[in-house]
Amino acid sequence: MNFPIIRYILGWVLIVEGLLMLIPLIVGFIYSESSGLWFLYVSLLSLVLGAIMSRKKPASRDFFLREGCVTTALSWIVMSVIGCLPFCLSGEIPSFADAMFEIISGFTTTGASVLSDVESLSHSMLFWRSFSHWIGGMGVLVFLLAVIQMAGGSGMNLMRAESPGPTVGKLRPKLRQTARILYLIYLSMTVMEIILLLAGGMSLFDSLTTSFGTAGTGGFGVKNDSMMSYSPYIQWVVAIFMALFGVNFSFYYLLLMHRWKQALKMEEVRGYFVIILAAIAIIIINIGPSSAPFGELLRHSAFQVSSIITTTGFATADFNLWPETSRFTLVLLMFIGSCAGSTGGGIKVSRVIMMVKTALRELQSYVFPKSIKLIKMDGKPVEREVLHGTYVFFIAYMLIYVVSVFIVSFDGFDSVSNLTAVAATFNNIGPGLELAGPTGNFGAFSDLSKYVMMFDMLAGRLELFPMLLLFYPKCWSGMVRYRKRVK
Amino acid sequence: MNFPIIRYILGWVLIVEGLLMLIPLIVGFIYSESSGLWFLYVSLLSLVLGAIMSRKKPASRDFFLREGCVTTALSWIVMSVIGCLPFCLSGEIPSFADAMFEIISGFTTTGASVLSDVESLSHSMLFWRSFSHWIGGMGVLVFLLAVIQMAGGSGMNLMRAESPGPTVGKLRPKLRQTARILYLIYLSMTVMEIILLLAGGMSLFDSLTTSFGTAGTGGFGVKNDSMMSYSPYIQWVVAIFMALFGVNFSFYYLLLMHRWKQALKMEEVRGYFVIILAAIAIIIINIGPSSAPFGELLRHSAFQVSSIITTTGFATADFNLWPETSRFTLVLLMFIGSCAGSTGGGIKVSRVIMMVKTALRELQSYVFPKSIKLIKMDGKPVEREVLHGTYVFFIAYMLIYVVSVFIVSFDGFDSVSNLTAVAATFNNIGPGLELAGPTGNFGAFSDLSKYVMMFDMLAGRLELFPMLLLFYPKCWSGMVRYRKRVK
Repeated sequence: MNFPIIRYILGWVLIVEGLLMLIPLIVGFIYSESSGLWFLYVSLLSLVLGAIMSRKKPASRDFFLREGCVTTALSWIVMSVIGCLPFCLSGEIPSFADAMFEIISGFTTTGASVLSDVESLSHSMLFWRSFSHWIGGMGVLVFLLAVIQMAGGSGMNLMRAESPGPTVGKLRPKLRQTARILYLIYLSMTVMEIILLLAGGMSLFDSLTTSFGTAGTGGFGVKNDSMMSYSPYIQWVVAIFMALFGVNFSFYYLLLMHRWKQALKMEEVRGYFVIILAAIAIIIINIGPSSAPFGELLRHSAFQVSSIITTTGFATADFNLWPETSRFTLVLLMFIGSCAGSTGGGIKVSRVIMMVKTALRELQSYVFPKSIKLIKMDGKPVEREVLHGTYVFFIAYMLIYVVSVFIVSFDGFDSVSNLTAVAATFNNIGPGLELAGPTGNFGAFSDLSKYVMMFDMLAGRLELFPMLLLFYPKCWSGMVRYRKRVK
Repeated sequence: MNFPIIRYILGWVLIVEGLLMLIPLIVGFIYSESSGLWFLYVSLLSLVLGAIMSRKKPASRDFFLREGCVTTALSWIVMSVIGCLPFCLSGEIPSFADAMFEIISGFTTTGASVLSDVESLSHSMLFWRSFSHWIGGMGVLVFLLAVIQMAGGSGMNLMRAESPGPTVGKLRPKLRQTARILYLIYLSMTVMEIILLLAGGMSLFDSLTTSFGTAGTGGFGVKNDSMMSYSPYIQWVVAIFMALFGVNFSFYYLLLMHRWKQALKMEEVRGYFVIILAAIAIIIINIGPSSAPFGELLRHSAFQVSSIITTTGFATADFNLWPETSRFTLVLLMFIGSCAGSTGGGIKVSRVIMMVKTALRELQSYVFPKSIKLIKMDGKPVEREVLHGTYVFFIAYMLIYVVSVFIVSFDGFDSVSNLTAVAATFNNIGPGLELAGPTGNFGAFSDLSKYVMMFDMLAGRLELFPMLLLFYPKCWSGMVRYRKRVK
């Protein structure tokens, strides 16, 4: 393990975070809140630490997948430790575990909160909370890649570790340019949403924070009732933008390049919208079309479906009170998640499609044992490595899930709360059912459970393996060997 | 598809079933129950049908994996349709759906019941119910293989379709002999249990039915409270025999051959006992060692753990009332299941071990990308095909599971009932939690849900693909093509 280069990149991450913290500081000034000053102190701390760590350039440029993964995992942890300090120090979220939970939930775009009364937070803190979604949505390292020139394979390995989904996709060749295009699409869509929300009469502060939460598919709101009290127009805007941010960004890239045919051929994007429409239909039928005006029913089901499948987690209705089939449909969406290459979490639609195709292919092989076994996506055969990676991902995913639920069960809450609280954090959604439902919060869980769910949020955001590597002893013994070799 | 050979084998299955039904007929005579006569009528029907179907020998001996799977799936369905008739016709379980559920639950060794008062059934019906576990435990087709000489590849393909677990294991070479040895081990262990239960003062009828339920890892009891009212000695005997019937039968085969070393090296068997001991320890700690005399606590936790991991489903305590961690531990055991090559269900310990090893190997490949990727079991590398089969099994397994829970959710019962009712039937266990808990039953579910769970029980027992194939259109269009070709 090449430790100096990890230190170097972590330093840059701290510098970026220190600079980003100046924005909530400004918000604090605007609202003349004294608590906003904490962002200044923490920002300075972050900048100084960052400057020290990135001062000495690493001697060796060795940077393999393991360095990429460890750097990514450590970056997110370091970012969170620094990022939670304003909450702690200002006393607005006094417990360190709670503050860490909240900021990890922010950066990982989960949106699960330990707070029962978010409206009591100051504006600067609320802003930082929502802004962390926006930062985490596209990823800090991708941002670094967009601005700093990196050595040889390092960029690719960082991007592989931080990007959601089975492959980095169609955007491979020029990494720096790719990272810039991604951020450009991300920024423009966010700005569009802000404008549309402002047009609907939402305040600037609410429009900004809501758009950050939508763009990152995060879900932190600035109101205790999430999105319930906003106008139907605003709820529709948010519902549609959530769905749009759950689309594979390669789709937008192809659109920008005027490669319409190729864009419309993307099976994952088509599958994603089919699932959304099917889920909306199921929920409307299940709740009963006569129970409310159709427009309202459609809006609430579309909003909740869009919010859950994209793993955002905003709510306009307390879906915990919905009938069982609707609840289970939402739980299924939690696991399916959004498209690969979007800002959303979950298993990802493309992986689900590949797994369904795998099962069908197996059936076919029983009937025609000699048929050629190829699984295709978008008309092209999927590489063996990608398929294998999908299976392994799913296995590791289920293992982490059951171990997490097992530990959380020590708290003694009911099964549905445990199962869905872990599902909601692991898939970076936010609300689950029962205790963790849209009107509940995660404050009641023990610190142990909270740390487990913090791990799950990070593991979910970083596609499992970077976080697992941190707990894999051979990874560190490999590091020791490397240092010996260098000396 | 070679249809004549399927018809031929189904005919033989019916003949065997007709003969087996004479045993409950005798039980009916002994207890002078008029309802026992139904076994005579149905037996005659089965024998006549069987004789007609097996009269004409098939012209072609073509018998591939697809024929093996379809034959197996159809055999089990035909067996169940005939097997449920005595329940229906006698009026003791008047509804056809209920009677089918009960007998499928019997043959698949699930043990889930729609009845709230089993003690009201006649002795012949109770006997047939428990006897169906014993028949289904080792499999009717394996029995056929033991007695009839089959053509070329047919035996192997039938055995592959009916045996639980990823590979038929170490017993391959001489199929007929293997089938006989398996039945011999099965029979001797059942007799041993009967003797030990009789020694504990249990009545002959109870000893027989309980031993059938244990041997097949079924779980139908003849008392409304399952095993709760029996003496501690009897509970211990049953607990230990359940655990023994969950062991891979290859282990006993190796012991019989005096190949001790090889037997003790079997990772699956070791893993199985480690899981059992760990689960018992977790439950004792979770319930609290001070809540009851230690001996009692140990007995109840050992009994329930043994019952659930082997997917038997007997109960000496209402584990639905246990604290959450214990409940979740049992739910995990439901999914893990017993060893491959035993009479139990579930995912199987060997598959779980291979999946854990797969995840660890993946981690290792991040650290040492050039290391050779081999997964070993019992010291030998696992074939690529077996590994791939395991991944595909797990994927298909989870897909069937979530679709089933989705359909069952239409009934509107609570999530835990739905999740565990499907888990308990799919894994061939019997009781789940809440509504489907050890003191509840499956009678409240709608007929639709019952048919879904019948499919799950069969799919679980036959390792998914044989049942799935029945619903795979290409399988039947292939058959049509074959018939044209033959003409």
